[in-house]
This record gives sequence, C-alpha cells and structure tokens, in this order.
Amino acid sequence: MTNKQYGKKQWALSDGYIPLQSTGREPDFVSSDKVSILNTSFDEATITIILYFMDGEPAGDYKFKVKPERVRKVRINDLIDPHAIPLGVSYAGVIESDVPVVVQFTKQNSAQKELAIMGTKAYPAD
Amino acid sequence: MTNKQYGKKQWALSDGYIPLQSTGREPDFVSSDKVSILNTSFDEATITIILYFMDGEPAGDYKFKVKPERVRKVRINDLIDPHAIPLGVSYAGVIESDVPVVVQFTKQNSAQKELAIMGTKAYPAD
Amino acid sequence: MTNKQYGKKQWALSDGYIPLQSTGREPDFVSSDKVSILNTSFDEATITIILYFMDGEPAGDYKFKVKPERVRKVRINDLIDPHAIPLGVSYAGVIESDVPVVVQFTKQNSAQKELAIMGTKAYPAD
Amino acid sequence: MTNKQYGKKQWALSDGYIPLQSTGREPDFVSSDKVSILNTSFDEATITIILYFMDGEPAGDYKFKVKPERVRKVRINDLIDPHAIPLGVSYAGVIESDVPVVVQFTKQNSAQKELAIMGTKAYPAD
Repeated sequence: MTNKQYGKKQWALSDGYIPLQSTGREPDFVSSDKVSILNTSFDEATITIILYFMDGEPAGDYKFKVKPERVRKVRINDLIDPHAIPLGVSYAGVIESDVPVVVQFTKQNSAQKELAIMGTKAYPAD
Repeated sequence: MTNKQYGKKQWALSDGYIPLQSTGREPDFVSSDKVSILNTSFDEATITIILYFMDGEPAGDYKFKVKPERVRKVRINDLIDPHAIPLGVSYAGVIESDVPVVVQFTKQNSAQKELAIMGTKAYPAD
Repeated sequence: MTNKQYGKKQWALSDGYIPLQSTGREPDFVSSDKVSILNTSFDEATITIILYFMDGEPAGDYKFKVKPERVRKVRINDLIDPHAIPLGVSYAGVIESDVPVVVQFTKQNSAQKELAIMGTKAYPAD
Repeated sequence: MTNKQYGKKQWALSDGYIPLQSTGREPDFVSSDKVSILNTSFDEATITIILYFMDGEPAGDYKFKVKPERVRKVRINDLIDPHAIPLGVSYAGVIESDVPVVVQFTKQNSAQKELAIMGTKAYPAD
C-alpha cells in the first residue's frame, strides 16, 4: 500500500447553524453539525478550525489531530477550547490541515419533529 | 492572524423554488431559500445577486455588504429592492463579490408536513 | 449588462432513481428527478441528455433548448422522445450544452410517507 | 456516438455511517450507504474501494467491475470480501478506477421513523 494523499489542505463552510431546542433521542438524533475528516496519508494531520459569526470576532484556533489512515468526526457543539460555541446562532468555518485531508460537513436538525434535514458539503478551498 | 481569502468571486445556483404555502412555525420553519456568504478577508465584500426565471427578464441587481471576517445569511424571500421575488415560481441566481467569498445555498420546504427537504449547494463559477 | 457565461458545457450525475409508487399529491410531491439548467448567456443553449442504465444500452439523445437568460427545469419522468424513461430503475446521465450552463440535479422521493429525501448534485465534467 | 470519458479516476468520501437499527421496509428503505458509479467509456472499469475507520486499520481492497456505458450501484453494507463492513460505526472511503468514472454517494438513514436523511456527495480527488 502506497502513501495516499487524498484531498486538500483548506476547506470552508458557510451555512452552519445549531438550534437551541431538540426533540431527538440522545446521542444520535440531537441537532448537531459535524465535520468528518479523512486522513489517508501515513502522517498525522494537525487540524485548525476557525469559526466566523454574523456579529462579533472569529473564534479559535480550535486544534486537534487526525491519526494516519484514520477518519475523525468532530461535533461543532463540542468545541469548547479556547471558546464554547454558542447555540441558536449561525456560523461559518474554515478548516486547515498540514497534510491533505477530505472534509465533509453534516447538518442534522431535529428541532421540529417533522423537519429532519441534512446537507453535506464543504468547499475545497485551496 | 493573516488576511485569509477563502472562496471565489462568482457563484451560481439553478434549482431555486419557493412554494406558496407553508405549514411551519414562524420564523424558523417557513419555506425559504437562503444564501450563506462567508467573508474571511479583512475587506468588506460588496455582493451583487441577479435572479433568473423560466419566463421574463432577469431581476436585479440586488446589492448588499458583508463585513470583514463575518458571515451573512440572505433570505431570497426578503429581496425586495429593486424587485420583490415572486412566490410559487422556479428561479436561478448568480452571486458576484468583489472579494473572494464562500457561498452555500440552503433550501427548506415545509409546504407538506411530511416532506421536509433540504439541499445545500452553490456552484463556484470562476 | 454584459454577456455572462456561467458554468460548464458538460455535466454528469450517477445516482438517478425513480420509484414506482408515490404517496404525494400531484403535481408537486410525486417522486421525480429534475434537472435545473441555467443559461446566463445571450445565446440560446441546445441541450443533449443521454441516460445510462444498469442493464441495456444508453437512451437518447434527448434534445431541448434553454432560452438566453432563462432557467429551465426538465423532469426526467417526462423524457419520452426518442424513448420513455422506465420507472423503478436506477439510471445515470450526462448533460451536454453548446454554451456554458449551470446544472443542478434534484431528487424527490415520496414513495414512503415518512421518507422524504432529496439530494442536489451534478458533477461539472469539463 | 463517440467514446465519452466523463469523470475522474479518484474519489473520496469522509462521512459514512450505518446505524445498527432500521425501521424501513426491506429492501428499499433500510439504512444504507450506496456508491453510484457511472462508466461512460467504451472500456470496462476496474474499481477498487478502501474503507477507513476511526479505530483500526483500513479495510480492502474491495474490487469489482463496471461495464462500458453502464451505471452500477454498490451498497457499502454488502461489501464482505475481503472483510464484512461493521454496522454502527463511522467510516470513510476512497474509490479508485482505471478509467474515468462519475461517483455519487447516497446516504439513507431510517433508524428513527421521523428522521430520514440523505446527502449525496463524493469528492473528485484527482
């Protein structure tokens, strides 16, 4: 098996939103935005996320690692260091990596029982 | 923090549609198409939207600003100057910016209670 | 207003499927796959669609026009010349145009009341 | 008809997940992730899928063919040789082909009756 390098080092998303209320059963069906990061390379990836809002300064840098040849899912809700993410607000984000990674963004909204929506999209920016 | 310039100056979408009726609670669950625009740069972005229809001339230019390092969500329903957008018709649109931005398009349809659909997509055109 | 030329001349999609049964009210909520084509140019676009299946030869060419500065939505269900599209089968398709166009693909599945799904995606292939 | 070569030879997805439970009727509405592969060329395509997980080594190579001018849908659930895919875990994958193909990824989740979600996306990686 050769050292694969799938993806890009820069990704962005602009339509993040986490509602305040939720009707789903924990933990699978609560409202959440997730970033799925695939690192196909033989090198550990260092990831930096910066979040942008409608009002106020950007938050970050949120930093974490993705091991070689592994996938990692990061719940935006769980980002607390250096700042907890607010609920009930719109946000956008950029994701940067030191090795190429594949990023997909998953929205799940269970605030209204009949309204279960999901989009999956991140923009490969470099 | 350096001056980031994520995205493109031209975006397009072709599958816009806003139904006439809606069953959702205001304001979160009404049928609406939204354009989310992320400006990661240190410069204010001037945005121009032009809408296209199946019949009749294009409408626009709709103009607005996105502040530096901020995200802005524009409801297509709320575009009234220079022309209010009609309901119950299909439309397409192009979004142009003077600095690179990241654009995502969100559809939400609550016209039929059981049918809650959402796609998120805009085409980076330059 | 200048002559805009947004998009590409070749698009493709691989995950088409139209179920046999449907529970929605006509005409808005029946199961259907739609291709939305935006022509921002000052020239009429001539579109050619070819459909591919799991078994059997490709079907087409399906031909139609999109006027200058207009959007057109084509229901795959309605393609009958030179061949009606079968229901209950998977298909893929390529969309070719003589001027650049923006294409988005919309799936709507109302075969099961609780299961209303939609994806919107076409791959810009040139 | 000329020999068309739509697409890319490398694709990737990072947000795969198959829940353990399902409420849908077999076989159309069970939870499943599907990869739709369109081969528009006159040559048979040899496909290789490798799956990545949060913990443990990658699985594969899963190999199969797509005939010339045909589309094929592969259920991730059905991949058993060389290893059956586990349920209830997140995964990512890369799809490689020896001729250009168009790949779309379809998620369908019927684990909770009211929550039927679908995204369709694969990242063209070469």
